[in-house]
Amino acid sequence: MLTTLPLERVYQFIEPGPVVLLTTQAGGAKPNVMTMSWHMMVDFEPPLVACVVGAGNHSFAALRKTRQCVIAIPPSTMAKTVTGIGNCTGRDTDKFASFNLTPLPAGHVVAPLIGECVVNLECLVRDAHLVNRYNMFILECVQAWQNPELDDARTIHHQGYGRFAVDGKIIEIKSKMR
Amino acid sequence: MLTTLPLERVYQFIEPGPVVLLTTQAGGAKPNVMTMSWHMMVDFEPPLVACVVGAGNHSFAALRKTRQCVIAIPPSTMAKTVTGIGNCTGRDTDKFASFNLTPLPAGHVVAPLIGECVVNLECLVRDAHLVNRYNMFILECVQAWQNPELDDARTIHHQGYGRFAVDGKIIEIKSKMR
Repeated sequence: MLTTLPLERVYQFIEPGPVVLLTTQAGGAKPNVMTMSWHMMVDFEPPLVACVVGAGNHSFAALRKTRQCVIAIPPSTMAKTVTGIGNCTGRDTDKFASFNLTPLPAGHVVAPLIGECVVNLECLVRDAHLVNRYNMFILECVQAWQNPELDDARTIHHQGYGRFAVDGKIIEIKSKMR
Repeated sequence: MLTTLPLERVYQFIEPGPVVLLTTQAGGAKPNVMTMSWHMMVDFEPPLVACVVGAGNHSFAALRKTRQCVIAIPPSTMAKTVTGIGNCTGRDTDKFASFNLTPLPAGHVVAPLIGECVVNLECLVRDAHLVNRYNMFILECVQAWQNPELDDARTIHHQGYGRFAVDGKIIEIKSKMR
């Protein structure tokens, strides 16, 4: 169902700044998922991604403990689900079940991929020394997946308080920039 | 011409992941400007923004030396200019002149604001200890400006190689998320 996304193309999906979902799985617990918008590329290859996860989030503890996660990029059609996921906690909610998400097994991490997402990035925590000061994790993407059925999907960008801009018109300008 | 943007609203412009312009001014040199897409919010208040600036960029040296910059968010109508700025270097080009940008004096930093941009953020380098390892600067936004004539402007998101998604439809969903 999902196909491999070459690692050198990962930045093309993170650099535009879409809202993403972060999945984790700690010990025998059910997998969990949170909504995240504070992330950026740090390097092309291997793809390094920095993210800030609020220390109060249930996912924070799992990410710190397991040092693994999946970053999944939802299509705009999932905006309501994305908001719902951001408005409840994995402490008392099985979010995969509540939001009808399809967990798929990953290759390198225990946390699941999300079948409904455009792209899934299997990530390992490469550097945790910024966690105490900034709640910041440096992740290395070790495997990436694309959903061929969502090739033309638009992503969403959070402007605060549940307001999202959906990708609109595409502009292509000749450029030397990667 | 520009009006104050309350600092607690800064994240609403960075969190969506727009392409930004970074201005610097080192010593007696002319001000310089680069195109940047690797940045994220780190904290709401004071607004902390992390960014990764390639060590080969002319702006990298100025930012490291002066510990000051302006992050300016261009409207989609500037896409060609944004690409042009990213395709030349301040080493041999006066980019403000070449691209007809209007430099405006900032209040707290020597680097200029850009009159044509939607939002301008005056920033001080708050933490440079990640520069050697990741080319990453942690910036604190100390003053923010909005261009009231560009209230409805759309921003652009870089997908690689000069391909940009322009903000399209706006979705608003009731949410507890800030």
